[in-house]
Amino acid sequence: MRVGFYQCSPEFGSVEANLDQYTQALEGVQADVVVLPELGNSGYLFLNLEEVKSMAEPADGPTFEFLHTLAKKHNTHLVLGFPERKGDHFYNSSMLVGPEGLMGVYRKVHLFYEEKLYFQPGNLGFPVFEIDGVKVGMLVCFDHLFPEAARVLALQGAQIVLHPSNLVMPTKAQLSTRVRSMENKMFWVMCNRYGTEDRGEKSLTYTGESQIVDPDGMVLANAPAEGDCLQVVEIDPAKASDKKVTSRNDLLEDRRPEVYQL
Amino acid sequence: MRVGFYQCSPEFGSVEANLDQYTQALEGVQADVVVLPELGNSGYLFLNLEEVKSMAEPADGPTFEFLHTLAKKHNTHLVLGFPERKGDHFYNSSMLVGPEGLMGVYRKVHLFYEEKLYFQPGNLGFPVFEIDGVKVGMLVCFDHLFPEAARVLALQGAQIVLHPSNLVMPTKAQLSTRVRSMENKMFWVMCNRYGTEDRGEKSLTYTGESQIVDPDGMVLANAPAEGDCLQVVEIDPAKASDKKVTSRNDLLEDRRPEVYQL
Repeated sequence: MRVGFYQCSPEFGSVEANLDQYTQALEGVQADVVVLPELGNSGYLFLNLEEVKSMAEPADGPTFEFLHTLAKKHNTHLVLGFPERKGDHFYNSSMLVGPEGLMGVYRKVHLFYEEKLYFQPGNLGFPVFEIDGVKVGMLVCFDHLFPEAARVLALQGAQIVLHPSNLVMPTKAQLSTRVRSMENKMFWVMCNRYGTEDRGEKSLTYTGESQIVDPDGMVLANAPAEGDCLQVVEIDPAKASDKKVTSRNDLLEDRRPEVYQL
Repeated sequence: MRVGFYQCSPEFGSVEANLDQYTQALEGVQADVVVLPELGNSGYLFLNLEEVKSMAEPADGPTFEFLHTLAKKHNTHLVLGFPERKGDHFYNSSMLVGPEGLMGVYRKVHLFYEEKLYFQPGNLGFPVFEIDGVKVGMLVCFDHLFPEAARVLALQGAQIVLHPSNLVMPTKAQLSTRVRSMENKMFWVMCNRYGTEDRGEKSLTYTGESQIVDPDGMVLANAPAEGDCLQVVEIDPAKASDKKVTSRNDLLEDRRPEVYQL
């Protein structure tokens, strides 16, 4: 299985240009799944609810249609963060789109900073989907800092975490995603945007350094702190099904939930 | 508050010599708590239950008496792993000893490899103790790889994790203890032994690199892969009481247990 990310720097509000960039970046790509950034159609730094309302769309909206066309063209699967409208509510969501269509939606459970002003916390739990028989889950950005999130995915059999991000705290997720991968024996594909988003009264700089990690916590591929970067690596997802670290230790079976009371 | 570790290489079966080494190593030490290795009186690589039986002792046994004398002498607290006998059962335990006496016992919850042949899994949960008003918890070695362990301590208010270890898998705990510290905003003092324990038919090499980490995951002090090493650093435990990473994000309050179902 070939998994990858495309690190880039979406421009706030320029949905069409951002999506066009994915078309260009993925030209000729050979991958089973490629992860794109959080809020990767709209940009991240909303200043008010009106801006969210103006760009949010349903999971089967035009951004989905665009990705579906792209997924069919390259016979691949794509993961992209987007501001989701569902009835009167808005979520910081991620969609998984394949040649067959919309395969899954995840709504960010752990909202970061001012996202709390605009988005509802995710109400779909941590669903697991299948890509050609391989179980995958999605997390979005700040979720990485809560070990429970990846753990719940692992306990449901997820072999790969697909992780669109817009990280602003340097190096933390580059460490934590390695440890999450180790402690759950999973693969992890983190796509983090880079660049500065200057909205006048507010500004954020994102940290790049997207990375793909194996179930031993080793980095298989990574990107620099700045710059567009497409990386695809071949992995054996079966390695994420074996949770043993010694002949007597299985990292999921050795858990003792009766002691945790979490 | 001054916290430290003494990394060394206990000799299997030489309880008196191992304890004597602590006397020498701690000469002149100025610390509020010093962590010593897992099974640091007996050595680690038991070949059969008879060996465990011959060296296990109750938590208030001679090893405690020795540490109590040492703790009084230096007006400090000591954490040491030891094979505990309790009735007919044996535990891979850690004791916290202060000038006042025995302050706490933790029994390793997640047993590694052949420890499962000799020891019962810990049945005391993850208790929290106080050193001069600062809340501390103990974990032992392999516990580091289970995020639930440190999380339970954090949720009970532990500000520092005291972590006697005999690690054999290189670098993993050096990464995971940084991430545990970040995700729980706690301090962490890991004392890992070094050296090769050659018991004839079996042999293990321990990885050293003991370290002290702050609530941002930064390494405050560490030891080389080999060699006796005493390190003591000054910390402000109050930093571990503030779980905020932004003005709107508190790492414990932002948890969503109703979604985890762990």
